[in-house]
Amino acid sequence: MPSPVPFQPAQAVPFINALRSRKPVVHCITNDVVQAFTANALLAVGAVPAMIVAEEEAGEFAAMADAMLANIGTIHRNTAQSMLLATAAAHKNQKPWVLDPVAVGLLAYRAGVADQLLQNHPAAIRGNASEILALAGQSSSAKGPDSLDETSSAHDAADELAIRYQTIVALTGEVDFITNGRESLSVHGGHVNLTRITGAGCALSGIVAAFLGCNNTDRLGAVAAACQMMKTAGQDASRHAGLGSFAVALMDSLSLQG
Amino acid sequence: MPSPVPFQPAQAVPFINALRSRKPVVHCITNDVVQAFTANALLAVGAVPAMIVAEEEAGEFAAMADAMLANIGTIHRNTAQSMLLATAAAHKNQKPWVLDPVAVGLLAYRAGVADQLLQNHPAAIRGNASEILALAGQSSSAKGPDSLDETSSAHDAADELAIRYQTIVALTGEVDFITNGRESLSVHGGHVNLTRITGAGCALSGIVAAFLGCNNTDRLGAVAAACQMMKTAGQDASRHAGLGSFAVALMDSLSLQG
Amino acid sequence: MPSPVPFQPAQAVPFINALRSRKPVVHCITNDVVQAFTANALLAVGAVPAMIVAEEEAGEFAAMADAMLANIGTIHRNTAQSMLLATAAAHKNQKPWVLDPVAVGLLAYRAGVADQLLQNHPAAIRGNASEILALAGQSSSAKGPDSLDETSSAHDAADELAIRYQTIVALTGEVDFITNGRESLSVHGGHVNLTRITGAGCALSGIVAAFLGCNNTDRLGAVAAACQMMKTAGQDASRHAGLGSFAVALMDSLSLQG
Repeated sequence: MPSPVPFQPAQAVPFINALRSRKPVVHCITNDVVQAFTANALLAVGAVPAMIVAEEEAGEFAAMADAMLANIGTIHRNTAQSMLLATAAAHKNQKPWVLDPVAVGLLAYRAGVADQLLQNHPAAIRGNASEILALAGQSSSAKGPDSLDETSSAHDAADELAIRYQTIVALTGEVDFITNGRESLSVHGGHVNLTRITGAGCALSGIVAAFLGCNNTDRLGAVAAACQMMKTAGQDASRHAGLGSFAVALMDSLSLQG
Repeated sequence: MPSPVPFQPAQAVPFINALRSRKPVVHCITNDVVQAFTANALLAVGAVPAMIVAEEEAGEFAAMADAMLANIGTIHRNTAQSMLLATAAAHKNQKPWVLDPVAVGLLAYRAGVADQLLQNHPAAIRGNASEILALAGQSSSAKGPDSLDETSSAHDAADELAIRYQTIVALTGEVDFITNGRESLSVHGGHVNLTRITGAGCALSGIVAAFLGCNNTDRLGAVAAACQMMKTAGQDASRHAGLGSFAVALMDSLSLQG
Repeated sequence: MPSPVPFQPAQAVPFINALRSRKPVVHCITNDVVQAFTANALLAVGAVPAMIVAEEEAGEFAAMADAMLANIGTIHRNTAQSMLLATAAAHKNQKPWVLDPVAVGLLAYRAGVADQLLQNHPAAIRGNASEILALAGQSSSAKGPDSLDETSSAHDAADELAIRYQTIVALTGEVDFITNGRESLSVHGGHVNLTRITGAGCALSGIVAAFLGCNNTDRLGAVAAACQMMKTAGQDASRHAGLGSFAVALMDSLSLQG
């Protein structure tokens, strides 16, 4: 596999402008912790978030929305069922959906849910190194939702997952690695504080869905543009040492880029 | 129907001061996305929020609280049942409750829940133009939780709903329209960023409940005062271009007005 | 019982530094309103929050984590069951867990859940005066989640609970009182705005769990250090009159202390 091609910040701009003008509706079934942060991040980048979770509504709405996000962070029986219905409907209606396999390597129940979801053909998978390693069936060092593995240790796992599921894998960390199994991009920048507030990764998965909801021609670029936007926001916010101010500045940057 | 009478910002002040001294307990069963924002907004205006959702507790607590909010944004079977119990208990104990019919026009399941809730006699309904049109049985252009209709296009629907359910309808948007079907008020001001952060409308519905929990004599004025408070907060916050800072400044203004 | 010994801010520093280097994983099953605030507060102090709620996962994860939090604020049947499984597993595996008995005196259902949870031997109970009085079987004046009782009126109830359940009680309010029934500490400082934003008490309960997850030798000091950290953050943030800015500055302080 050739080395990933560095994605340049300026390459994100046309994707961002298209998103802001298209205003895609993003159906999110995500974890309890990051609901507001994800909704605000999606609004900030110009998308329209809609968290629809009832089994009676999830499939119907996924078919109407432009893209969908399934995040298993606080998965339980009811939300698992709704995610399965929504992702099946998204696939059937050719709407891209993104899997965020939070902490998938830690617990057998969520690993089983993730496996079922993968049968519904995600357009992208966004996770940290520990999650991507676990999803590919390799061992990881995680003992919580944070990654204790280097992203570079998971490049092969990411490529393998991308090929196995004919999808794009966004492996995020100090340097992001975006691959479809044949070509790959790297996204640089960001700041360590992105891992010290809750929800930056989960919100990024939603933003990936938003970008995919606007672009069928350059999907690898669309995913990289989403990652770039969060990296740039992290850098813009890094002038604040305190984590409360950092989170506010991050949202400011997401709303002002482009 | 005569034109709505413009509500003046200064008219809100006695309502705000009464609220801050009375500290009404507002029982909220609201959507997963806006729980914290709604609680903080209620605390900021001087109310005491309490999110009590178990079927075993919802009716009992609604009878004890001063007012209640039912928001169907992320409705599912369990919360629908709790909302029905709580709104029935609120009505039986003459406690005002507010319906926020999020995205009611989009999905049949929530339309059915909203219909059941309406049988429990809300003291007010707070929604955007698409939601008010849908609730009145008219067609709307929404394809997500945001309104794609002008508020003026829904004045007649708001009046009709107010008469049909003997309630007050707060139709909010660029200009808010508050009607009991016989008299109406308009509330001006605000800022477009109120639609670019999650929860401003949902929190406003909670604030409407808080104001109604303090006032049985001028209910139309109480609802307008709640709307005015959010409009003023939006204007105060509009000096911030970034949406993170806007949300913080909005909460600051809600806590300092009066 | 002798008077509580005043805990000095400087005494918290070694506890904070140990926490930041140890990075304990804190399993939280907490209420719907404060999920993000609790996760961010835990990250700010250097812990790793993980909200795992499925019945299939709760016990398994509690055994893996360093500490656990059970908060009954929005308790319902599913989360009650998960909390019982998680607290039983935590106790069995000698992992400290903290009970936050939100509004326990108001409603019989949650009082019953709290009684069941208490059988699983919490390492600490963190509550306001109304909650501690109610848990000890004494009458309180609460009519919502806020305390309407003075902390000093609940010192005896706190001592009694600590002895009955062989635990530490952190009774928080204008002055915090930390007792194991034989010795007690008082923690001073803070600011009234800590009661005017949602989640400061709930997040503190999580921080108490984090400190206990790092220290088996001086548990009374560890709990007091957690309370001190929140008091100091409240004071640091009190230069902001608006509640939005106060909450941001509070998180800044939690992330920068030590």
